[in-house]
Amino acid sequence: MFEFKLLKESSDSKARLGKIITNHGEIETPIFMPVGTRATVKTMTPEELKDIGSQIILSNTYHLFLRPGTDIIEKAGGLHKFMNWDKPILTDSGGFQVFSLSDNRKITEDGVEFRSHIDGSKKFISPEISIDIQNILGSDIIMAFDECAPYPASHYYIENSMKRTLRWAQRCKEHHKNVDNQTLFGIIQGGMYKDMREISAREMVDMDFKGYSVGGLSVGEPIEIMNEVLDFTTDFMPKSKPRYLMGVGSPDYLFEAVERGIDMADCVLPTRIARNGTVLTHNGKMAIKNAVYKEDFTPLDRECDCYTCRNYSRAYIRHLFNVDEILGMRLATIHNLYFLLKMMENIRESIRGDYFLEYKNDFYKKYGYK
Amino acid sequence: MFEFKLLKESSDSKARLGKIITNHGEIETPIFMPVGTRATVKTMTPEELKDIGSQIILSNTYHLFLRPGTDIIEKAGGLHKFMNWDKPILTDSGGFQVFSLSDNRKITEDGVEFRSHIDGSKKFISPEISIDIQNILGSDIIMAFDECAPYPASHYYIENSMKRTLRWAQRCKEHHKNVDNQTLFGIIQGGMYKDMREISAREMVDMDFKGYSVGGLSVGEPIEIMNEVLDFTTDFMPKSKPRYLMGVGSPDYLFEAVERGIDMADCVLPTRIARNGTVLTHNGKMAIKNAVYKEDFTPLDRECDCYTCRNYSRAYIRHLFNVDEILGMRLATIHNLYFLLKMMENIRESIRGDYFLEYKNDFYKKYGYK
Repeated sequence: MFEFKLLKESSDSKARLGKIITNHGEIETPIFMPVGTRATVKTMTPEELKDIGSQIILSNTYHLFLRPGTDIIEKAGGLHKFMNWDKPILTDSGGFQVFSLSDNRKITEDGVEFRSHIDGSKKFISPEISIDIQNILGSDIIMAFDECAPYPASHYYIENSMKRTLRWAQRCKEHHKNVDNQTLFGIIQGGMYKDMREISAREMVDMDFKGYSVGGLSVGEPIEIMNEVLDFTTDFMPKSKPRYLMGVGSPDYLFEAVERGIDMADCVLPTRIARNGTVLTHNGKMAIKNAVYKEDFTPLDRECDCYTCRNYSRAYIRHLFNVDEILGMRLATIHNLYFLLKMMENIRESIRGDYFLEYKNDFYKKYGYK
Repeated sequence: MFEFKLLKESSDSKARLGKIITNHGEIETPIFMPVGTRATVKTMTPEELKDIGSQIILSNTYHLFLRPGTDIIEKAGGLHKFMNWDKPILTDSGGFQVFSLSDNRKITEDGVEFRSHIDGSKKFISPEISIDIQNILGSDIIMAFDECAPYPASHYYIENSMKRTLRWAQRCKEHHKNVDNQTLFGIIQGGMYKDMREISAREMVDMDFKGYSVGGLSVGEPIEIMNEVLDFTTDFMPKSKPRYLMGVGSPDYLFEAVERGIDMADCVLPTRIARNGTVLTHNGKMAIKNAVYKEDFTPLDRECDCYTCRNYSRAYIRHLFNVDEILGMRLATIHNLYFLLKMMENIRESIRGDYFLEYKNDFYKKYGYK
């Protein structure tokens, strides 16, 4: 099953409160989805993910297709069982990684031939193959196979790419049979060109997907451009269906996305920077390896009540990073994900109480954002 | 406070059941102590350590002295607070690492001058300095500063070394003042020479420590020699005090040690091999990265009820190691430590029921030991 309930719209912006219902549980929106690229959110157990309030995670079709391979996950009984996660999973289509990670891509109308970034072996993914893989993975929300065009790209390039992505989306829709258990989202492309975004959005909506994502943003363009294109695009998206902005996970990008009517987002940012010792706090980012924290026995963030902040000092976490102890990466990951998930919870609360922009402004002021 | 209660002696061997009471809690013996070298048992949180039944952990004076430095831990309020562990801690004296890790050692009667294995800086540890550091760390059980002699070593070398270790032990005892909160153990040395072991044991016992450890074994000698020297040595150790064999952590070494009257042991083995993908099972060691486990959806060990075995398959854990995911190391570490701690619990049970040798023989047969 799949249902989206729009619970409330803000009066001060396009921010909206909603709920998605899937076979593996409910998701309150707007939501941030931690990324478990290779069937694990790096350093975390499923129980830890639940403890910090994760309602849904994302996993990557391209990576799982290469390793361990779809056959293994099929024999395991699907991705939920394989990785011991019983809440909703969203998988991407593999499109983004095929275009960003693999070598020697050859794009045809049929699909994309590429070489694995692991061993150089020749691989092929088409819209149908992407759906087949995702059907085997058994994720609750699956994505249509698309091309995430680079930035910058010419109007001519974007037009060709966007139109092929539309044709691929149609093929995905026709090929997807497991509709009771898995819900297919279409992806709106069109680069930074409004006319292209409008065509992509209108055509995708005409195909009547259960949800839509905005792809091809946060690919290197200035945030002002992203905001403008996003704002323009969401106006063409139906209010009755969830809207997902792909690849966005810093606090400001999440606020800006929600302000423009986005319900879902994902990014490796919080987990990746955590493993490098960068943590998010209410007063901005902090590089915990810095010597100034050597004798600082306060928590990472005084306002945070995550497991890390309740139990460990900056000095201890700095020591762990300083001597390359894995527990340091674990504690920073728990903190960063909790920070974002709690922020999203506060955002939902602010929409419910209709003070979203006020909350955003307060957060920005403290965090140091303009 | 510190108390050792001898609860039961086996009729089939020198195996004994006991209990140690410290300010931070009780320890049932025989016990295996997970090693938290640098103020963290690698990959684990304190809560996870408790969940698998850890009653006491060991940490290393030498490593903490170099990083983060004793001053930081002093300012944190001691090692327990620094690392968020409220159960007993045993610290070694630094002796073993000074002799095994550092460069350019210069041993004098006063102490050892050496170069840090981290940055080459010149350092000095004497019996008094070792006690000072351990007093600051605040560990419940602290060790006298000793030389762990290499194997093989001449009788002449061992005699000089062992006698200096006796003089150092006396200095440690005189220097240690915080006797209400921290209990000092003496270390019996003497290499593989029985006459040296006898002198070392008799003299240490004369100094009247609250507990004694056997050092300088499991340093490369065949297990038969270790067993013989250990068996000989424990006969000189008082029954009323705990006996600790340093640096032993494989199942067979633990059984052999307990059989010869040992109450405590520690080793990095279970955690170190776990991070390389080697796990202990009731049917012997298993290299989980092996391709034969690719489609094996059974747990690491069918007879194990640890978190890892209850929730994950060999195929999933193999995948995690195959793609270098930290969760793989975590799951293997949890399993290996649980395996040994559970084995020690079974050993205690077998002593209580007076069937220790029967349990040992059954275990060996299944595990593949002779």
